[in-house]
Amino acid sequence: QTTMPTFGKGLQFVGKDSSYTMKIGVRFQTLFINQWSVRNDDLNYVEDYSSNFLIRRWRLKFDGIVYSPKIKYKLELGLSNRDIGAANNPQTNFASSIVLDAYIDWNFYRNFSVKIGQTKLPGNRERVISSANLQFVDRSLLNSTFNIDRDIGLQFHHHFKLGNNFIIQETAALTQGEGRNVTAGNQGGFDYTFKVEFLPFGKFASKGDYVGSAVKYEAKPKLSVSAAYDINDKASKEGGQLGAYILINDFNNAKTLHTLFIDFMFKYKKLSIMGEYALKDTEDGNPNVFEDDNEIGTYDVGSGYNLSAGWMFDKNVELALRYTAIEKDIVVGNSMKEYTLGFSKFFNAHKFKFQTDLSYRDNYYPNTTFENKGKNDNIYWRLQFEVHF
Amino acid sequence: QTTMPTFGKGLQFVGKDSSYTMKIGVRFQTLFINQWSVRNDDLNYVEDYSSNFLIRRWRLKFDGIVYSPKIKYKLELGLSNRDIGAANNPQTNFASSIVLDAYIDWNFYRNFSVKIGQTKLPGNRERVISSANLQFVDRSLLNSTFNIDRDIGLQFHHHFKLGNNFIIQETAALTQGEGRNVTAGNQGGFDYTFKVEFLPFGKFASKGDYVGSAVKYEAKPKLSVSAAYDINDKASKEGGQLGAYILINDFNNAKTLHTLFIDFMFKYKKLSIMGEYALKDTEDGNPNVFEDDNEIGTYDVGSGYNLSAGWMFDKNVELALRYTAIEKDIVVGNSMKEYTLGFSKFFNAHKFKFQTDLSYRDNYYPNTTFENKGKNDNIYWRLQFEVHF
Amino acid sequence: QTTMPTFGKGLQFVGKDSSYTMKIGVRFQTLFINQWSVRNDDLNYVEDYSSNFLIRRWRLKFDGIVYSPKIKYKLELGLSNRDIGAANNPQTNFASSIVLDAYIDWNFYRNFSVKIGQTKLPGNRERVISSANLQFVDRSLLNSTFNIDRDIGLQFHHHFKLGNNFIIQETAALTQGEGRNVTAGNQGGFDYTFKVEFLPFGKFASKGDYVGSAVKYEAKPKLSVSAAYDINDKASKEGGQLGAYILINDFNNAKTLHTLFIDFMFKYKKLSIMGEYALKDTEDGNPNVFEDDNEIGTYDVGSGYNLSAGWMFDKNVELALRYTAIEKDIVVGNSMKEYTLGFSKFFNAHKFKFQTDLSYRDNYYPNTTFENKGKNDNIYWRLQFEVHF
Repeated sequence: QTTMPTFGKGLQFVGKDSSYTMKIGVRFQTLFINQWSVRNDDLNYVEDYSSNFLIRRWRLKFDGIVYSPKIKYKLELGLSNRDIGAANNPQTNFASSIVLDAYIDWNFYRNFSVKIGQTKLPGNRERVISSANLQFVDRSLLNSTFNIDRDIGLQFHHHFKLGNNFIIQETAALTQGEGRNVTAGNQGGFDYTFKVEFLPFGKFASKGDYVGSAVKYEAKPKLSVSAAYDINDKASKEGGQLGAYILINDFNNAKTLHTLFIDFMFKYKKLSIMGEYALKDTEDGNPNVFEDDNEIGTYDVGSGYNLSAGWMFDKNVELALRYTAIEKDIVVGNSMKEYTLGFSKFFNAHKFKFQTDLSYRDNYYPNTTFENKGKNDNIYWRLQFEVHF
Repeated sequence: QTTMPTFGKGLQFVGKDSSYTMKIGVRFQTLFINQWSVRNDDLNYVEDYSSNFLIRRWRLKFDGIVYSPKIKYKLELGLSNRDIGAANNPQTNFASSIVLDAYIDWNFYRNFSVKIGQTKLPGNRERVISSANLQFVDRSLLNSTFNIDRDIGLQFHHHFKLGNNFIIQETAALTQGEGRNVTAGNQGGFDYTFKVEFLPFGKFASKGDYVGSAVKYEAKPKLSVSAAYDINDKASKEGGQLGAYILINDFNNAKTLHTLFIDFMFKYKKLSIMGEYALKDTEDGNPNVFEDDNEIGTYDVGSGYNLSAGWMFDKNVELALRYTAIEKDIVVGNSMKEYTLGFSKFFNAHKFKFQTDLSYRDNYYPNTTFENKGKNDNIYWRLQFEVHF
Repeated sequence: QTTMPTFGKGLQFVGKDSSYTMKIGVRFQTLFINQWSVRNDDLNYVEDYSSNFLIRRWRLKFDGIVYSPKIKYKLELGLSNRDIGAANNPQTNFASSIVLDAYIDWNFYRNFSVKIGQTKLPGNRERVISSANLQFVDRSLLNSTFNIDRDIGLQFHHHFKLGNNFIIQETAALTQGEGRNVTAGNQGGFDYTFKVEFLPFGKFASKGDYVGSAVKYEAKPKLSVSAAYDINDKASKEGGQLGAYILINDFNNAKTLHTLFIDFMFKYKKLSIMGEYALKDTEDGNPNVFEDDNEIGTYDVGSGYNLSAGWMFDKNVELALRYTAIEKDIVVGNSMKEYTLGFSKFFNAHKFKFQTDLSYRDNYYPNTTFENKGKNDNIYWRLQFEVHF
């Protein structure tokens, strides 16, 4: 038996001349979802119980430095069926999409660095937070509806300080715009993402601006506010990097998708608060795609926001609340409001934890005379274990 | 080079505060199958030779303890095409089914423990025996026809002793009933499995009640007898956890599958004997599913038994015999009797071995006037290497 | 942190009684392809720019010895979508084809050894060279058109010396002939491959006869010349081990594919030269397959050669040139000539490198009156990072 760091830090290896390091991590989540529908939004009619047991995530991770301390790398594989779907798509070579991350991150000059390869775009905060480090069982409806996910290409990073504490970080990405593991190449144009982050009170402990819940105690208030803007030139999929392909013959008929994210994270002692705003729209404000006067598809446009807050009690137990509102044009889908109450027991911070949350989702069509009566609501109760070596 | 335990014990790591252990195992099987058909069951007409070279299994395994010595975990991935099929199914997210095991096993009170996640159900003995530890090249027809495979949910275990030696183990499982890696959730009802095991003469060496062949010498006779019962409420697949989905619209038309297993393992010195009985039936004894007066599918019901015995000669060479009989209603398929002669050379017990077996399979329809003449028989000759780090 | 060899040598483990060794390697390539078409072969009409960002390869490798120093093994997995395609094929169990290599290599007598399992056939040199060790961004058109890839079965190797230096190596393989990870068994007949290699001036440094570029300095000239011949009896796929299945009902109508490869590698100081010739044809010289007088498919027959040469400059920078010519019958496809200029910067030989190449591909139909005007040409500019632990 070879001795390794304590639990949660992975298996760690180093080349004898320090020419590289490698941390190997394994993690999985076992999730149980209970779901009901609420007929006519009337809580007297809670019915249609259904359930879903899932290995929600099962990941292998490799990261460290390679060749020089200035070159980092990260490799991550998803192995669960929820992570690797769509092996029936020609665009991904009729294969399961196992590779999540594969990039090198080269600090080529002072505060400048570039990531080359496939990884998450600098989009909304919830998406950039690892799925291992979430405050609730899973991300919000805002994220599932509007996030720009992973993509492949280049990401330039820079950061600097204003005065002693005020940190500003900027990122600009040039990527393919088709999402991860596409083998069929770029359809339409490239994707351009810009993000700026402001941390007026300095760094969070242990990168806590991208970690849910107050698992690290911040003796002084810490805040990060950021804005990101993504331009997916002539998008080929309904959501840009995500969603089904729209079967476009002439990409002059495709539309450019614009996505704006504004978000913040605030942490102080046992309190953590996070909020996000998202707006996605086509260049001309019309979500439909036309070819030869026929509507052949619809982009997933709309807007939304969420706000969540948690309080860490003794014994690493946290209670948290989240409110999410998503508004969509009726041709895109129904709008939603969701209220979530979350409970977490952190046995070893986010590395070994039990989480459960209860959500009420109000599905409705805005501006209809019969209000939201046309669409049944939902109740979700989810329970999850996370184990992360 | 970092020193590890001897071959067959995997790569072993331990957190420096003993907060976790991790054993990493790799294994693969390379298999060659030769097959003939025997026309009209007449050995003068052995014909239609066909062959199949396979990487039958290629696995990665991770197990150990996590957080506390009372919490174990096991993670296993299948990577060979035989293990990960059906990426064309919407129910598994159009993805290859790579995850085999992913669970934690918590000894929460005295002799009580609970497994949470995905793993094998407490079904027939042959199925619970690892595919690395089989007496023959592969499991019997009884197993491929009736086993209840893996599932996801909860499994409660308990064991106690009667007197000094007599061990009784009980297991009760509450699972989804759809088999492994289903992302579409539970259709029909849950699955309930109960198993009780009797070991009147105490524990086998090295968990030998679930290891084929007398690879460990038992100086005194050892016996395990067990019975398992599985209730798959409103089953959605032809075999419950396995088989094709039956396309049922109204699950009131689905039927509940009941499966009974009775089996035993006996070992003494160089002798090992194993037997199994299986019975699978629908709640009403009719295997067909009807919707709007149309038959839309058939459950894989029937009964069968097998009996195998092996003798370990010098130099870790074993000869073994197996007889399997499967009886099915004619609407489900043909019945089968199979006679198998197996030879194994264990270079390092089950960790590095060569196995070959020769089988004669008598395919027939019971109660037909022309006996089994309507169906050709088969001969199989299989050769396999197993390497298991 | 556990100390390991320097970068590029993998994680290395050894059983405490030397009963096994295991080297674990991880590697990935991140590739960017730019492509243009040249209308009517007229460089005044370079148009139709398209691009493709890819995680081209993402691999896990395990190799070492097992049980005895005379038994080696190699296991390799491909995880990128480009490597694991065709999960929509029944012949591969509707699963992604993740397993690349899985074999044991047993040196059973003096200079004789046998590989049992799945790995590359002893075909053309470029194919046998690892995709990690190529002189250009990727292999040539000769390889993609005619190579015989991986297969499963047995490979017998032998080598001997003539005098002090002249090494001769012979290989004979008996395999299934269907390529890798087929679960449906052998269709048509087996595959027979024979290869003989002559190294008149002795071994290359670090197995450099199967490594592209002069990454090792050869103080004296080194040469390897080899010839390989493959017979795919009653081939089921268009290219034998590769390509789409031809839907043949009666394999008496299938044809036997013959493939001849002649190639060489020459290295001296900073110079490396490689050349290959390939010829693939059906037994009767007609590429088409007929059933009931209907043409139901076409084998990928034809011939081609390539010649490449590189010069290693200071600072591990190499420039290389390659010329490839492929000739096909018009019923099989268009013929091609390709001119490639390659640039490589080896930060750590092939383990961490940047490569880029620029190709002009002349697509044409031989013997047509309008020369190659009927088919547009292509320009490719590719850039790639390789990281190989």
